[in-house]
Amino acid sequence: MKSDFRLIKVCTGARAGELITPRGVVPTPVFMPVGSQGTVKALTPEEVKGIGYGMILANTYHLYLRPGIDMVERLDGLHKMMAWDGAILTDSGGYQVFSLAPLCKVSEEGVTFRSHIDGSEHFFTPELTVEYQSRLGADIIMVLDVCSAYDDSFEKVQQSMELTHRWAERCQKARRNQSQALFAIVQGGVFPELRRRSVEFLTNLDFDGYALGGLSVGEPKKLTFETVAQTAAQLPEKKPRYLMGVGSPEDIIEGVARGIDIFDSALPTRVARNGALFTWEGRCNIRNADFSRVEQPIVADCGCYTCRTFSAAYIHHLFKSGELLAYRLATIHNLYFIHNLMEKMRMAVTGGTFSRLREEFWSRYAPTDEQVRVSQKQKWLKSKRRGLDIGVEGN
Amino acid sequence: MKSDFRLIKVCTGARAGELITPRGVVPTPVFMPVGSQGTVKALTPEEVKGIGYGMILANTYHLYLRPGIDMVERLDGLHKMMAWDGAILTDSGGYQVFSLAPLCKVSEEGVTFRSHIDGSEHFFTPELTVEYQSRLGADIIMVLDVCSAYDDSFEKVQQSMELTHRWAERCQKARRNQSQALFAIVQGGVFPELRRRSVEFLTNLDFDGYALGGLSVGEPKKLTFETVAQTAAQLPEKKPRYLMGVGSPEDIIEGVARGIDIFDSALPTRVARNGALFTWEGRCNIRNADFSRVEQPIVADCGCYTCRTFSAAYIHHLFKSGELLAYRLATIHNLYFIHNLMEKMRMAVTGGTFSRLREEFWSRYAPTDEQVRVSQKQKWLKSKRRGLDIGVEGN
Repeated sequence: MKSDFRLIKVCTGARAGELITPRGVVPTPVFMPVGSQGTVKALTPEEVKGIGYGMILANTYHLYLRPGIDMVERLDGLHKMMAWDGAILTDSGGYQVFSLAPLCKVSEEGVTFRSHIDGSEHFFTPELTVEYQSRLGADIIMVLDVCSAYDDSFEKVQQSMELTHRWAERCQKARRNQSQALFAIVQGGVFPELRRRSVEFLTNLDFDGYALGGLSVGEPKKLTFETVAQTAAQLPEKKPRYLMGVGSPEDIIEGVARGIDIFDSALPTRVARNGALFTWEGRCNIRNADFSRVEQPIVADCGCYTCRTFSAAYIHHLFKSGELLAYRLATIHNLYFIHNLMEKMRMAVTGGTFSRLREEFWSRYAPTDEQVRVSQKQKWLKSKRRGLDIGVEGN
Repeated sequence: MKSDFRLIKVCTGARAGELITPRGVVPTPVFMPVGSQGTVKALTPEEVKGIGYGMILANTYHLYLRPGIDMVERLDGLHKMMAWDGAILTDSGGYQVFSLAPLCKVSEEGVTFRSHIDGSEHFFTPELTVEYQSRLGADIIMVLDVCSAYDDSFEKVQQSMELTHRWAERCQKARRNQSQALFAIVQGGVFPELRRRSVEFLTNLDFDGYALGGLSVGEPKKLTFETVAQTAAQLPEKKPRYLMGVGSPEDIIEGVARGIDIFDSALPTRVARNGALFTWEGRCNIRNADFSRVEQPIVADCGCYTCRTFSAAYIHHLFKSGELLAYRLATIHNLYFIHNLMEKMRMAVTGGTFSRLREEFWSRYAPTDEQVRVSQKQKWLKSKRRGLDIGVEGN
């Protein structure tokens, strides 16, 4: 059985639907927790499921390098290896090759890169990434794309986009496993004309779903959402739309408002491990001394395990003491917060009250300052490149 | 209701009993997982309970420094703060003051020390540690003792022991909360004559239980167990006996064989985080490349969550990738292994087959080389002193 999508309701641009996968029906809009290396950092699969998630993202680049595609296959595929019986979408590795690998050379045929782990050289082609994702056993797989940087010229973005198109065609032809859905990735940077052409080209090929790639890579947020709105409006109504790498509460709600169905990002889990916890007023930093005496939970009416069980003062204590439980409890809280937000949005769409929900959200929520956000992301990318990531800081 | 002890059966020196605490009956012999800072590292209280544990150890020194006794009290005591409804035994902090604090000066009145966290100066007296433990709300509390080093002279060990005796008497007088059991700590190093005198002095004061302190601090293992055997034989049969800081499978079984009822040690959880996992053949190092292709669980017939759910190859992958889940799954396995061993021993004692169990254990188990063990412990103590402990390496 291949994945399918059913659009249930549209409300002022926001959509409620169902992603039907071989491993269960996933209500949309949906956020996918990131488990790049075959584990949602700090959590067991039961915990991820317990929070309410039915689909996660894993990464071909990471799993190819470690433990290796052969090894995952030997362990009966990714689901079995990590004991996750929900759906899995795998990213092709395109983004990681361009953002993490210390060297990366693109040709018509594919992309040569060095491993960020040991410096060894590797070669990905569209055909190979489809084969790898098939062998990993993912339910939804992604085409290999070429990512542009925010400061790339129109010509460079255009070239990357056109190569992405040719690679998308090759991925489609290379697909053998018909039970896996294949999503294309719309590129074109922040140039409306390129995005339009990318949508046109890819929708003519008729993929199972369409992702918006090359966004949230350093451009001003206003530009991100203008591009999202324009691109989403051009995509076929009956196919799922996936905004890659976007995962803050404020960005998700704005994505849904522009017709996005699927999101993924390491942000909720990564910032959790740094002590940044989501509340309806914005992110709070649990390491802040103000929390040392707070007997109440982090979010008063929160239904997550962390808030139901422990005071904010105790979580503060765990962070100050460097206790491993801290990262876990914070991850549970942030993932629960996002899941709860997705459910609220879905109910608002089906109930025809999405605009009111969005207004209510913004009446309380103070987003993280954009400059802070961008500098944090750059710091994180740098530490990844230097190989400093030990699971606590990165994702 | 105060804790009590009921001896059920003795079999070739090994004992089976029940520790009756205000928070449930704990079958003995029992091992207590260590939660120094108010958390058993990497696990939720539900997980600790789920493995089968009914009693844990927490530490007055650590909790006094962070989050502070006032704060724990404000959060309705240690049980409530950490959401643990089983029994808690608190160590007085004596051992930590002598092993972790960068400066420590003993007088008749008490001990002055500097915090290993911020260098601030503090003063513990027997009376204060009893008060602190009372306010933490522990079910069983320990006297403040003076720890000798293994290379201390007879005279120095004697002086420390005599001061420990006077402090024990002061602790007994200072006790206000009669629902907390108070255990004394037998000192005297590896000198049989001093140990005998320590037992004599402390049993005359009639405590609720007796701990053997100042062992497993660098002395040869043969000497440890000679001292344990001699000391245990002199202790009253009807009171529980607690061997502090001992927690490897091989040492626990030898402790039980010499009449010990209670154990605690950070070893099972600490070595787990370094990838050393218990098997019936001895410790294995899951980071070893040999495990990269092992589809079977770490221990074939193990009933723990980790072994029931994941292959050894996956755990190996998590460790190599620095994934936080690794520390947790390894901790679960080692704590389950020890709990299972305690249950096996208890059944063997009540069934009259303890000697056979011990023989069987030793026919398979290869203990960790003692030199390796001692050098690892010294390395760990050094890293604690330098304040490098971030929860992954230390305990």
